[in-house]
Amino acid sequence: MRILFYAEGGKPEPWLAELKTAFPAAQLRVWQEGDNEPADYAVVWKPPLAMLQPRAGLKAVFNVGAGVDAILQFGDALPAGVPIVRLDDAGMGVQMAEYVTHAVLRYFRRFDEFEVQARAGQWRFLKPHDKEHFSVGILGLGVLGSRIAQALAHFDFPLSGWSRTPKNVPGVQCYAGQEGFDAFLHNSRVLVCVLPLTAETGGILNRVTLGRLPPGAYLINVARGAHLVEDDLLALVQNGHITAATLDVFHEEPLPPAHPFWQEPRITITPHMAALTLREDSVRQIAGKIRALERGEPIAGVVDLTRGY
Amino acid sequence: MRILFYAEGGKPEPWLAELKTAFPAAQLRVWQEGDNEPADYAVVWKPPLAMLQPRAGLKAVFNVGAGVDAILQFGDALPAGVPIVRLDDAGMGVQMAEYVTHAVLRYFRRFDEFEVQARAGQWRFLKPHDKEHFSVGILGLGVLGSRIAQALAHFDFPLSGWSRTPKNVPGVQCYAGQEGFDAFLHNSRVLVCVLPLTAETGGILNRVTLGRLPPGAYLINVARGAHLVEDDLLALVQNGHITAATLDVFHEEPLPPAHPFWQEPRITITPHMAALTLREDSVRQIAGKIRALERGEPIAGVVDLTRGY
Repeated sequence: MRILFYAEGGKPEPWLAELKTAFPAAQLRVWQEGDNEPADYAVVWKPPLAMLQPRAGLKAVFNVGAGVDAILQFGDALPAGVPIVRLDDAGMGVQMAEYVTHAVLRYFRRFDEFEVQARAGQWRFLKPHDKEHFSVGILGLGVLGSRIAQALAHFDFPLSGWSRTPKNVPGVQCYAGQEGFDAFLHNSRVLVCVLPLTAETGGILNRVTLGRLPPGAYLINVARGAHLVEDDLLALVQNGHITAATLDVFHEEPLPPAHPFWQEPRITITPHMAALTLREDSVRQIAGKIRALERGEPIAGVVDLTRGY
Repeated sequence: MRILFYAEGGKPEPWLAELKTAFPAAQLRVWQEGDNEPADYAVVWKPPLAMLQPRAGLKAVFNVGAGVDAILQFGDALPAGVPIVRLDDAGMGVQMAEYVTHAVLRYFRRFDEFEVQARAGQWRFLKPHDKEHFSVGILGLGVLGSRIAQALAHFDFPLSGWSRTPKNVPGVQCYAGQEGFDAFLHNSRVLVCVLPLTAETGGILNRVTLGRLPPGAYLINVARGAHLVEDDLLALVQNGHITAATLDVFHEEPLPPAHPFWQEPRITITPHMAALTLREDSVRQIAGKIRALERGEPIAGVVDLTRGY
């Protein structure tokens, strides 16, 4: 078996070592410019288009992450008939749940405000929020969105969720499609975005949609920077409609030094760390899927190119 | 039925209104200096000793909180044979779970450090902690400690707990008594204190015990200020043995303006807000217990004066 590997900006050696452990007899190589040689499987993160050109023997491309937007941007140039496979959870679900739970609890219990007070040497009680009116709306109810919902349910937050097609998640009031979107927004005091980035979802967080959140809303974006129209958020934070936002992803990463978000204390910035790909868990999952494909069995996580995730 | 009410520093009217709803036919009154008249039940928060003097007809004293240290300090002066009853959870469990989960996630995911970086306009990745070595040790495994453990278990933190007498909490490595204390401390990267304050537990968090935590440990105290020797914590934070601490309670509250904790950025201060007494839930619980007592049934939460909680 021949496995081709490429990861933008990461060292390939630890990945090759994990893959070697999983498939001791396989031929492993790192893709380099001009390599058009045959391969059975490709394992990739943000590959250049040249790597994804039609290649003799290629049975599947495994993306080392949940979001496949960096691959699907190539559209029709992708090799026809070769499945593209994303990670399912692989340790990212619990990390997303940690990140979002921390941010929701921080706003709900007003820890951000208590911290500002403490830095000023002030001991002052702040009236708590009412949990009944602190509903959390999760945009995207796949593996990650459901895991986030499960974590928040543990603390009795009222929960709703929105997905493109109708879903049923226990304990979550589920909305779907364009016709359910406004009602979902009206009902979300905290909006959490964990959508895949597709042609339909780019810019979905904008002046109009964020304006439909109840006054005093909060935004948490752990999906992709391109979901958010950044200037629109800034205006809504500055006019007070949105109380605060926690953002892990941005149009340009690293966030440029001159970006106005750095100067806005109501916007909390983290450097795209909400859910890291865990090498060991990911290779274990990919190896399991390769073995299933070799036995002719179906696998989870195959991307539907028409819907874009 | 005659119910006597007193709460230090709070308005009595809303409490009387809730009690009136629960017992429309009862005679309700607020205790005032010199009131030695009979009563069936007393509902109190930090009452003066004079209110607790032997009183004709008194069947039980209900404390509007989980900690009864402010009552038990009167020792032998308390009326003999009258049960003192603390709240069981009554909405405080989930609040404690929120507070502690937020603090643990903040340290585990290094959000405190990311925030310092963001304030300085720095986009820089920080290597994550290893969850396997981020064990949380809970001092006190009663209703609140168990609820905290349940919340943290949801995020797969390794958990241990310590109690005076042996307990068995699912998913928690349980230690007990003096003989189990050192092993518990050695094993707690994050120490959470939710003990009752008694003659045995005052000052339990000191240079010796905190020194037995692994280097780079964290402390979260949501119990009572008197559990902690504050100068000892400060020394251990400043010499680096303790990385950071989150404290909701202090020897003197409000924390005095000149207290050195205000100047130490590694100590996070909140103004005793981790778990508020929820009036409605508390009165519902107390009313249920009064009805049980009137029917001659046993109730939960009766304080054992010899153990002190």
